[in-house]
Amino acid sequence: MKNFGYYMPVRTFYGTDCVKAHQDVLAQFGKKALIVTGRHSAKANGAQADITSALEAVGCSWVLFDQVGENPDLETVVAAGKLAQEEQVDFVIGIGGGSPMDAAKAISVLAANPGAPSDILFNDPKAKTLPVVEIPTTAGTGSEVTQYAIITLHEKRTKNGIVQPLFASVSFLDPKYMDVLSEKVTNNTAVDAMSHLVESYLNTAASQLSKEMAKIGLSYWKECIPALKARTYTAETREKLMMASAIGGMVIAQTSTSIPHGLGYFLTYEKGIPHGRANGMLMQAYLELFDKEDENVKAVLDCLGLASTEEMGQLMKDVLDCPETFTAEDLAYYTKRALETPQKLLTFPCYKLDEKDVLSVYEKSLL
Amino acid sequence: MKNFGYYMPVRTFYGTDCVKAHQDVLAQFGKKALIVTGRHSAKANGAQADITSALEAVGCSWVLFDQVGENPDLETVVAAGKLAQEEQVDFVIGIGGGSPMDAAKAISVLAANPGAPSDILFNDPKAKTLPVVEIPTTAGTGSEVTQYAIITLHEKRTKNGIVQPLFASVSFLDPKYMDVLSEKVTNNTAVDAMSHLVESYLNTAASQLSKEMAKIGLSYWKECIPALKARTYTAETREKLMMASAIGGMVIAQTSTSIPHGLGYFLTYEKGIPHGRANGMLMQAYLELFDKEDENVKAVLDCLGLASTEEMGQLMKDVLDCPETFTAEDLAYYTKRALETPQKLLTFPCYKLDEKDVLSVYEKSLL
Repeated sequence: MKNFGYYMPVRTFYGTDCVKAHQDVLAQFGKKALIVTGRHSAKANGAQADITSALEAVGCSWVLFDQVGENPDLETVVAAGKLAQEEQVDFVIGIGGGSPMDAAKAISVLAANPGAPSDILFNDPKAKTLPVVEIPTTAGTGSEVTQYAIITLHEKRTKNGIVQPLFASVSFLDPKYMDVLSEKVTNNTAVDAMSHLVESYLNTAASQLSKEMAKIGLSYWKECIPALKARTYTAETREKLMMASAIGGMVIAQTSTSIPHGLGYFLTYEKGIPHGRANGMLMQAYLELFDKEDENVKAVLDCLGLASTEEMGQLMKDVLDCPETFTAEDLAYYTKRALETPQKLLTFPCYKLDEKDVLSVYEKSLL
Repeated sequence: MKNFGYYMPVRTFYGTDCVKAHQDVLAQFGKKALIVTGRHSAKANGAQADITSALEAVGCSWVLFDQVGENPDLETVVAAGKLAQEEQVDFVIGIGGGSPMDAAKAISVLAANPGAPSDILFNDPKAKTLPVVEIPTTAGTGSEVTQYAIITLHEKRTKNGIVQPLFASVSFLDPKYMDVLSEKVTNNTAVDAMSHLVESYLNTAASQLSKEMAKIGLSYWKECIPALKARTYTAETREKLMMASAIGGMVIAQTSTSIPHGLGYFLTYEKGIPHGRANGMLMQAYLELFDKEDENVKAVLDCLGLASTEEMGQLMKDVLDCPETFTAEDLAYYTKRALETPQKLLTFPCYKLDEKDVLSVYEKSLL
């Protein structure tokens, strides 16, 4: 019998103004929160004001750390962890795209373990954590419903996941926060959500239930394709993208991601290519690693209304703007790096990839 | 925007011999377990032997309470709660159909609150509980993935849910335990699973995601219809019924059940009709409470390959054996009783039912 275990311990509240509607749940986490955001977006989209009003309404105080950049690095979360300890906060609230939400998880570990070295994030799966609340303001990462947090390690010139499986206690999903997103961010993050759904579906760890759920997410995503191509988004598009993203998170929480994520990190680190777009750029070549007649690949393409892997490649070209150029040396370097961390690359591969396979994915995608 | 929040905090392990494969997870709950079962089935199907071997392998001791009958009453769980306190157990393991699994949840509340009156089950939603592990040996109740536990109250001549939302910490779902089930138990419990999927789908609390998940469960159930009619079950049928049942539990955990459950309890209490069969007997009339053109009813019937509510009625006749006869007085009594507890009856109705509606459901179904 094929496994179809399923676990989703995050209390999710959805809908416009859901923070205010469910603010009472915040009081259970303590008296003082650290709010973790990027520099601007949580202010621009209204999420920061919503959560501070909610905290005040339930008698919680708060302190703000708004210095999380894209692809948060270890130095940033260590600084925020120190602030959390000094301020003796009881819980951590992440607001933003994947960067502040992932940072909030890592910060909650550091805050709960005063005196521990930052290595604790990568070597102690059972480390204590503070409760985490997440508020996504992009529709892509799914971090609000996953146990994952990815931190950039300059020392290793890549990104690594923290080893604590850290689900938020509560997440608030309000599509209004996404109204202010630019076309680029909307499309790049949407492609991240799609890549989660595809990589989960095609994962060797996929279960019958996770595959069925991924199909639901893909069907929402399919309905957004015209909007993503036209770069015009109705409220309905925003809602559907948010649903696709949350379902994408729920399924990678069961299966993890796969090759595009494993190979895409180097594009992000070395060329600054946004994470979702990096996955999208590798998507066609990833699908072409499978047999031509692979039933699962066919099912994924079918859910998206695509007739072939070439149509997937064209769709990615239509919805993403990719100005970068790459040299053969770039690709050889990425390949070397990818093979250095086989545990990441091969965690859940479609089959065991060798150097030639990896290089061919990069070549097909980037030259 | 319609809510599609989703929460499923039970770690589920699925598959043949999953108890042994994942026995290490038991050690986290403490040193001594109370095993709660019915009188015979957990011995006959091998589940009790599997869990005692697993406990011994991880250094846990255990004590057995094997006196749970069908529709466990308050007296039974109070007796087991006392045993749990005397034996100072750290956690409770329920093995069986809904009766032992529900009893295990109620016992875990009583065991965690020495000296508290048994009323605590019905008036203190925040009462402490011991961790609960569940092992279903029928495919119907879904109790292994829900927060519900239903206890019979002789004083009130009906069944009531405990007020603690009590999800198991871990559930083990092994279809081999269902091989020994009789045709009657298999079909009656299968209809319970189907009723969960239908009542959740048609519930006013249903969300987009819960409905999509219910459809997945219904599609598994549909594939079992020929086997349920023929009363012959392959290993594949057993697996699909177990999946349909678990998904049914996952969706009623989001939405609760509806009219058939609310009205069926009296058939169980007064006539001893098994719970799943009672729901099935009321199913056609329940569906006919909705508008003839109701889209959701059509969707449910379509998932099951049924063209009309009449076909649902015929299907229930085909898979259930219903020898009972009822008098007009019986139905008047059930109607009176159902209206006495409107909070149960009307928790999530398709619309507000009055006396005439309730009586008509009973008349259509039972005369």
